[in-house]
Amino acid sequence: MVTAQQPMNRLDRRKARTRQALLDAARAFLAEHGMAEVSIQDLTEAADVGFGSFYNHFTSKQELFHAAIADVLEEHGQLLDEVTADIEDPAEIFAASVRKTARMIWTHPQIARILAQTGMSYLASEEGLAPRALRDIRRGIEAGRFHIDNPYVALATTAGSLCALINLWVTDPDVVDEAACDELTEQVLRMLGMPRRSAHAIVNRPLPRS
Amino acid sequence: MVTAQQPMNRLDRRKARTRQALLDAARAFLAEHGMAEVSIQDLTEAADVGFGSFYNHFTSKQELFHAAIADVLEEHGQLLDEVTADIEDPAEIFAASVRKTARMIWTHPQIARILAQTGMSYLASEEGLAPRALRDIRRGIEAGRFHIDNPYVALATTAGSLCALINLWVTDPDVVDEAACDELTEQVLRMLGMPRRSAHAIVNRPLPRS
Repeated sequence: MVTAQQPMNRLDRRKARTRQALLDAARAFLAEHGMAEVSIQDLTEAADVGFGSFYNHFTSKQELFHAAIADVLEEHGQLLDEVTADIEDPAEIFAASVRKTARMIWTHPQIARILAQTGMSYLASEEGLAPRALRDIRRGIEAGRFHIDNPYVALATTAGSLCALINLWVTDPDVVDEAACDELTEQVLRMLGMPRRSAHAIVNRPLPRS
Repeated sequence: MVTAQQPMNRLDRRKARTRQALLDAARAFLAEHGMAEVSIQDLTEAADVGFGSFYNHFTSKQELFHAAIADVLEEHGQLLDEVTADIEDPAEIFAASVRKTARMIWTHPQIARILAQTGMSYLASEEGLAPRALRDIRRGIEAGRFHIDNPYVALATTAGSLCALINLWVTDPDVVDEAACDELTEQVLRMLGMPRRSAHAIVNRPLPRS
């Protein structure tokens, strides 16, 4: 069933703009400073909205930050969908997604730091990376490329492995380079039941450009 | 070279007893309440030591909690060493350790909850589980059972997978049972390069009693 979206009146539009301005400010702050101390007033000033309007949209700074991170993950997920659109093999789609997500260390370093600590709280999220990863794992199973019983356990181990790699990078940046990202992906593919040889071949394919 | 331990004088013994009393109190609190709010005064009262003596040993509650968790992991690691002492195959030792660690969900539920959030900060720890896991991964490589290039990446993915499983249990306890713990272990063994058939056989061996 297709439902027409309700047109927004002027008040709704203004509310949406305020919310988006707060999200943009939070995201800019996160990208530069991570979860370091910032006051709600700093954020409303950066967003150029009234201090009081904050609480029309969010109950706490944490809620705003959470929403901003969820936005980044959703955008990243959309990007993955686009760049893998021409790949047919579900295993290769999944591999390219994991390889690109690991590289958030360089493309979104502050967000990566936050994900290292909080990433697994997004496992049950209905948007962002988790539902896409589940979808791709299921497609891999259907195509006979992956051999696992419980896609949720596989999602958890994939996400956990990614968070662990980012943690490793936070603790010791020299250990983690692009080769380590691909090695992680290769390990994840083997975990999903691919033979060593196939897993190795897939992570050595050219990575789609974003 | 074997060095004789310096005998402790009475003051040293008293300091050691105070420290241990604080650690025991923190551990009892963590086991029952997790990281919920508790004051330093509550902890010194539970430990039956003077409030002021807290700062002779720890600079913050977090430091005390961290030390108490590290103690639990070290004890758990010693337990794993004992119960796997009679197993010869390094892959089976590693599998038994991962299976038993996943089961901390039931043996140490509050500690498991804390590990789910902070576990990966113990990856670089020089005691507890991380150095034992690295040792066992290296033995598995030497024995030709595991096929990976970078033991640190394998340690990170193993720890990340375990933390993710615990997170899954925190979010949705019904999804995680003993079968899921063993499935996770099987996935970790495959990640380490074992063929599907061997990994499956190993996680179906009887688990050593603790």
